[in-house]
Amino acid sequence: MSPAAGSLRIVGLGPGSEDWITPEVSHILTQATDLVGYAPYLERLTPNRGQILHKSDNRVELERARFALGLADGARRVAVVSGGDPGVFAMAAAVFEAIESGEPQWRDLDISVCPGISAMQAAAARVGAPLGHDFCAISLSDNLKPWPLVERRLRAAAEGDFVIALYNPASKARPKQIFDAFGLLRTHIGGATPVIFARAVGRPDEEIVVTTLQAADPGRADMSTLVIIGSSATRAIAREGAAPFVYTPREAGAAS
Amino acid sequence: MSPAAGSLRIVGLGPGSEDWITPEVSHILTQATDLVGYAPYLERLTPNRGQILHKSDNRVELERARFALGLADGARRVAVVSGGDPGVFAMAAAVFEAIESGEPQWRDLDISVCPGISAMQAAAARVGAPLGHDFCAISLSDNLKPWPLVERRLRAAAEGDFVIALYNPASKARPKQIFDAFGLLRTHIGGATPVIFARAVGRPDEEIVVTTLQAADPGRADMSTLVIIGSSATRAIAREGAAPFVYTPREAGAAS
Repeated sequence: MSPAAGSLRIVGLGPGSEDWITPEVSHILTQATDLVGYAPYLERLTPNRGQILHKSDNRVELERARFALGLADGARRVAVVSGGDPGVFAMAAAVFEAIESGEPQWRDLDISVCPGISAMQAAAARVGAPLGHDFCAISLSDNLKPWPLVERRLRAAAEGDFVIALYNPASKARPKQIFDAFGLLRTHIGGATPVIFARAVGRPDEEIVVTTLQAADPGRADMSTLVIIGSSATRAIAREGAAPFVYTPREAGAAS
Repeated sequence: MSPAAGSLRIVGLGPGSEDWITPEVSHILTQATDLVGYAPYLERLTPNRGQILHKSDNRVELERARFALGLADGARRVAVVSGGDPGVFAMAAAVFEAIESGEPQWRDLDISVCPGISAMQAAAARVGAPLGHDFCAISLSDNLKPWPLVERRLRAAAEGDFVIALYNPASKARPKQIFDAFGLLRTHIGGATPVIFARAVGRPDEEIVVTTLQAADPGRADMSTLVIIGSSATRAIAREGAAPFVYTPREAGAAS
């Protein structure tokens, strides 16, 4: 790699608190010449002198990825910034999609992904260890996939008795899916199953609600919420004057 | 909380590199009076003067959890140390299991979980973004759950067309399960599906192999290996003179 060669790092800031940004990511953020990302993520950073911030809307991921690749191809040191883990429902997939359909020389760029704490991990940590055994993560957004595929995955998750983490449960444009998802899950999963709504984890307005599948109000979920639904083995431990702990034991469930 | 009260922090070091330890965890490690964990994890740390290290075997998780709770109940500042994320197939679930079946006053202790980068995230980052869309994580260990439940979950994962991350794929005492798992998955999933064996990620002896379900040798997996099996949408991008990138696009797959 010549000294003039550019680079592309796809980094994750974690879900909100500075305390969750890895040293790897912090170092890259100080060394980059260009920071590319959805505006609210870039606004969490204090740029160095001379660093260029390229803020974008959150609906233009592929365009943003191509722009970042073009900068790196032009010998800039580029950091593409995601919240959470860039590899989990975030920018890394968009960058590789852009590489596959883009300029041939993009495949030879110096590119790497730097993992971060994902929303489900932070949400789980706040209540105990609901992801302590087999689990799955499903995005409820049908902007880019057909809703029947979401339903197929929800059914399979219930059939496999997985703990389920739901990303992108709702937004202003998609208020209804989370109701449909809970409707489907309620026909397969016991009503006493613990459910967690974790909103804005790591931010000053963080709000965690522990409830059950039966009692849950799906309308609680918005675009800043991560929802976790337990397996048949997930347990809530009652406490006096505090929210219950929720965990999934290591010997998780019966065979059928 | 009185100044004499103890505390219990369940922390994750990430998969191997110091560069992945969050500032939250680093801070706790400097403040703890007692560090409790599986010996190889504690050996990654440089203890402060006066800090007490309690090293244990890796098969005594519940006993280790009770010991740590007893220390915290005795007004010590205890850090229970896991590799990866303590909330994902690690110590956090064991601690809450110990709380549920333990001394009533343990429920009132100052306890929290501090997330870390889990092995699947580090493995994914090394090859691209295979976890970029809906995925599940399954432990192949049948030490604490019946093997038919593992099979049920593998079938459900295939039926749901999830990307699959396999934790604990094999050990000296369990060399056979990974062969059985691949045998089962090969009857449900296309042979061209990308498969990743990520061994010792973040350590000097790191080794990453990208192959296909058809060509994969399950015997490659050992207790330091994380295995990722793509969904039907997961793609490998060929590169000259380098391992292919692997990613799962955001518009992942058809409905059925």
